[in-house]
Amino acid sequence: MRNDNHHSDHHDNQAAASKAAMMRALLLSPSLGFLMEAHNGLSARIVEDVGFSGIWASGFSISTALGVRDSNEVSAGEVLDTVAYMADATHIPIMVDGDTGYGNFNNARRFVRQLCRLGVAAVCIEDKLFPKTNSFLGECQPLADTDEFCGKITACKDSQTDDDFCVVARVEALVSGYSLGEALDRAEAYRRAGADAVFIHSKRKDGKEVLAFAKEWGRRCPLVITPTTYHRAVGVDSFERAGISTLIWANQNMRASMHAMREVCEEVFRNRRVSDVEQALVPVKEVFDFLDYDELDDASRRYLPAEPTRAPRRNAS
Amino acid sequence: MRNDNHHSDHHDNQAAASKAAMMRALLLSPSLGFLMEAHNGLSARIVEDVGFSGIWASGFSISTALGVRDSNEVSAGEVLDTVAYMADATHIPIMVDGDTGYGNFNNARRFVRQLCRLGVAAVCIEDKLFPKTNSFLGECQPLADTDEFCGKITACKDSQTDDDFCVVARVEALVSGYSLGEALDRAEAYRRAGADAVFIHSKRKDGKEVLAFAKEWGRRCPLVITPTTYHRAVGVDSFERAGISTLIWANQNMRASMHAMREVCEEVFRNRRVSDVEQALVPVKEVFDFLDYDELDDASRRYLPAEPTRAPRRNAS
Amino acid sequence: MRNDNHHSDHHDNQAAASKAAMMRALLLSPSLGFLMEAHNGLSARIVEDVGFSGIWASGFSISTALGVRDSNEVSAGEVLDTVAYMADATHIPIMVDGDTGYGNFNNARRFVRQLCRLGVAAVCIEDKLFPKTNSFLGECQPLADTDEFCGKITACKDSQTDDDFCVVARVEALVSGYSLGEALDRAEAYRRAGADAVFIHSKRKDGKEVLAFAKEWGRRCPLVITPTTYHRAVGVDSFERAGISTLIWANQNMRASMHAMREVCEEVFRNRRVSDVEQALVPVKEVFDFLDYDELDDASRRYLPAEPTRAPRRNAS
Amino acid sequence: MRNDNHHSDHHDNQAAASKAAMMRALLLSPSLGFLMEAHNGLSARIVEDVGFSGIWASGFSISTALGVRDSNEVSAGEVLDTVAYMADATHIPIMVDGDTGYGNFNNARRFVRQLCRLGVAAVCIEDKLFPKTNSFLGECQPLADTDEFCGKITACKDSQTDDDFCVVARVEALVSGYSLGEALDRAEAYRRAGADAVFIHSKRKDGKEVLAFAKEWGRRCPLVITPTTYHRAVGVDSFERAGISTLIWANQNMRASMHAMREVCEEVFRNRRVSDVEQALVPVKEVFDFLDYDELDDASRRYLPAEPTRAPRRNAS
Repeated sequence: MRNDNHHSDHHDNQAAASKAAMMRALLLSPSLGFLMEAHNGLSARIVEDVGFSGIWASGFSISTALGVRDSNEVSAGEVLDTVAYMADATHIPIMVDGDTGYGNFNNARRFVRQLCRLGVAAVCIEDKLFPKTNSFLGECQPLADTDEFCGKITACKDSQTDDDFCVVARVEALVSGYSLGEALDRAEAYRRAGADAVFIHSKRKDGKEVLAFAKEWGRRCPLVITPTTYHRAVGVDSFERAGISTLIWANQNMRASMHAMREVCEEVFRNRRVSDVEQALVPVKEVFDFLDYDELDDASRRYLPAEPTRAPRRNAS
Repeated sequence: MRNDNHHSDHHDNQAAASKAAMMRALLLSPSLGFLMEAHNGLSARIVEDVGFSGIWASGFSISTALGVRDSNEVSAGEVLDTVAYMADATHIPIMVDGDTGYGNFNNARRFVRQLCRLGVAAVCIEDKLFPKTNSFLGECQPLADTDEFCGKITACKDSQTDDDFCVVARVEALVSGYSLGEALDRAEAYRRAGADAVFIHSKRKDGKEVLAFAKEWGRRCPLVITPTTYHRAVGVDSFERAGISTLIWANQNMRASMHAMREVCEEVFRNRRVSDVEQALVPVKEVFDFLDYDELDDASRRYLPAEPTRAPRRNAS
Repeated sequence: MRNDNHHSDHHDNQAAASKAAMMRALLLSPSLGFLMEAHNGLSARIVEDVGFSGIWASGFSISTALGVRDSNEVSAGEVLDTVAYMADATHIPIMVDGDTGYGNFNNARRFVRQLCRLGVAAVCIEDKLFPKTNSFLGECQPLADTDEFCGKITACKDSQTDDDFCVVARVEALVSGYSLGEALDRAEAYRRAGADAVFIHSKRKDGKEVLAFAKEWGRRCPLVITPTTYHRAVGVDSFERAGISTLIWANQNMRASMHAMREVCEEVFRNRRVSDVEQALVPVKEVFDFLDYDELDDASRRYLPAEPTRAPRRNAS
Repeated sequence: MRNDNHHSDHHDNQAAASKAAMMRALLLSPSLGFLMEAHNGLSARIVEDVGFSGIWASGFSISTALGVRDSNEVSAGEVLDTVAYMADATHIPIMVDGDTGYGNFNNARRFVRQLCRLGVAAVCIEDKLFPKTNSFLGECQPLADTDEFCGKITACKDSQTDDDFCVVARVEALVSGYSLGEALDRAEAYRRAGADAVFIHSKRKDGKEVLAFAKEWGRRCPLVITPTTYHRAVGVDSFERAGISTLIWANQNMRASMHAMREVCEEVFRNRRVSDVEQALVPVKEVFDFLDYDELDDASRRYLPAEPTRAPRRNAS
């Protein structure tokens, strides 16, 4: 466990500033980078601890963890509350899934300013309509007008308060059944409007349209993908060769926790004991280690006056 | 999956009122009842779906999921935000771990009024000092003055706005190294002050002091336990025979999700693919089913005007 | 000052339930009723204390007090946080300005469920587009499609968890430059969709179109108005005779506090003393009386153990 | 009105960073500086607009505006929500009234980290016990142990993420009936523990003990006062000559708004019209100007595509 850091410097402004720079470097790097999904402070910290270079704060996962649907049922303020815990708990950069920006350009740029304040490194906004529908649901979801979405991107860029903050434009054209040409036209328009990277989304199982897009795109700016449906069809090496910059594992932590909790709940409910499931649980002590309770002990010794010895009446037995 | 309920009646005030009555019945029932830990809307809903009768909103688990320590690092308002999602997502009663009540009697009674508003069924408050330390850490943690804690219990009871709301008094005497007699004296004082149930806590591995307590107590009011350390030593039948009312599985969902997320993150990080871990993930479709996206589809048909057919330019390939 | 109530019963669920019934009675009463604007807990309590029967939780005033614009810059969750303080601080019913419902029917019905939980009595939603623009700004703001807005009203009605909760449909047709006929058609459609009352808005200075509307409407359901621009032209007796049910003074508390704070700030800044402005301030003691600090003293005596007498070393001088 | 700034640069991180430097300069300046109380985004912006160099985010005023008592009834998270709006709305530095730090050193340092994130310039913590009681209530309130409070100050200083952030130690010894010597001893201990300034509080009406303290103190570090009770007895020039660094007008905006709202409510309730009170209200247009709605118009032209002209059916009359 790479828990060498002091809890107290988790909140370093310098670090916050450089989180965006780290994300920018990740996007611009010639090698394929990975972002792993997280949806609360704990999962974010696990992602960092395991070694990933960056975090994807998934809207789907955050809303699922809260118990609501990925249809903008929670408002921007509630998402920001969750993101704040994630940013506080980690040193690596976070890209926040900003859906459609929670309204028009004005809502989107306010969201960006609040993300910058939290030390978030990047936002991804998608060219659909508010309130959004999860991309894996239904067909032919309506897209935002291209000009309107370009204005939103520019507004976000003009409003960021950290120069390295990145705005990623997510193109939903392929998911909504539009042509590769439409997707490329939109991507190019978004790039010209100021997007630092383009997220080309697809829900086909063969991954071909993403590779075709990448070929046509030709590294005009960093490309981001999430192969939720096509990860079996195309290996990461192919993505790297195709010039993809960054791959997002978009929801695996949430889906793993849901699976594990259901299994444990069913077993405990059925057997009325927890001994059968213990191998599926981290020990309590590991929680204490992971969240650095020792630091609090050390700090207590440093900041609290020594207490007089107390001798409680001990139970004799 | 018992997903017969409509999302929209999750918020029924009638149900909210009866949640407290359900918890009261659970506590008063002669047979042993179980509460399963949850820490966000999703885990709460899983607990309900699996069949448990009630939920333990664990302070340890909630803070861990947020990425902070179980030392009152998050304030009462932030805990209530989490609890609101849990109550919204479920029909079964929730007992909230209220730690020490977040300050004095006035903070505790304000917390109770806010829980009642959320349709929460019960609060458990413990006789330690604010800010609290997790009971499994250190030895001989100082206890609250008995009279002061009795006043806090009475203030909570006087402030509840649902007659069936339950205040559970958690006795930390045994955990802090005091005698069985001290624990019994405190429990009796708390009962007289108005507590609806007594939570007798212990971190010994043999469970003996809990059984001894139960024997002396003699069902004066419902007894609640959480056998985190002694679940191997004593079976649930013994607890039932000893007159224990309710057993809390206090943190297993959080520990299961932490274990699962770490495993999945490590595997995905190492192998740069998710195919190896798919059996440990719920399918995306199961998330949609579980959070009742169909209801939103139905509602959209009911509440939205029919849209003109749209024929996007389809990708030929 | 009518401060006979105990702070602790501010949160009575019974009262919460009956707040909606009180609002319903106010709307249905044959005599003209009044709602006074409030924007935080303090102003809400003043409105109640002075004798008003109900509160208008103005979106314009709430956003202004927060320091942001009335353009849905704050999200639904943040508005609900403010409304919670207002509901906690008062016994009289609150009608919340719900703007356009913060999105589509699904956002609106979620908002209604959360209002019901807070004990709010009514919501007013308007037939414009999200994000909204304040009605006094610009001309010819686009309106919502009538069918879409009717669906939103029905969704709200179907989701309320208090039978007496009222959904008020605000017709913006006149403000947006449409004809009286269009306004009447929309109002009738909204009434049939389930609206408990119609709020007919106008920004003309002569009040004539509101009176014309009321005449044509003929008390089909309660009519609500806010004469911000035309209060000089038409007296309240005329509104009463015209069959208006409820008049909202929509923003006066916010505008009064802004005026007073600016005056005091300028005077204190200029003169570097506060003695000149004291007559414009309530005494500190009045704050203590108004928020019932005595209740906390009483409660401290009731719930806290008597403390040993303490004799601090007094300053001799 | 000094509204020359663009709304969008209100959130400039550079500005945020320099807010703490501005506060530090204010405290260290040889001339007497002033902080004016604010309690929400609107009042903060008025304070800035009128010309003050800094803002006092009063706990008494914030809680009163929320409708609750100044007894730590609202938790740290809720205070931070309010402070965030204030910081967003202004460019001048804010000193936040941190009461006792909302618990022990660990709560206090977490509060400091969150304030730094918001771009707040300073925190003031006082040497009383959590939950606190307003200093103008009762006599002989118990004080924190000096060593414990020194540890809290050091913990705050060690946790700030902006080098210029200031921690102000508020000495309540005089208010609680202790001697001048005790107050001086505590102030010196707090200074040595790292406090950037000392706030010497007094509720006597003659101001003598503050002047006596200042004389003995001899500018060891900046002194802060709030002459709520003794502002008539001693003029600001005397404070300046006595070496006081900064004077806080601690609650006048809240008290002015409360006075104005009560007057307006009573008049409107009695007369059933608002025309009598209009001179006590800012015009609606002034609100639009003050919160820079023009910027939103400009931005809409810049970021939104031009809309096709719309010709609504106009009312003929």
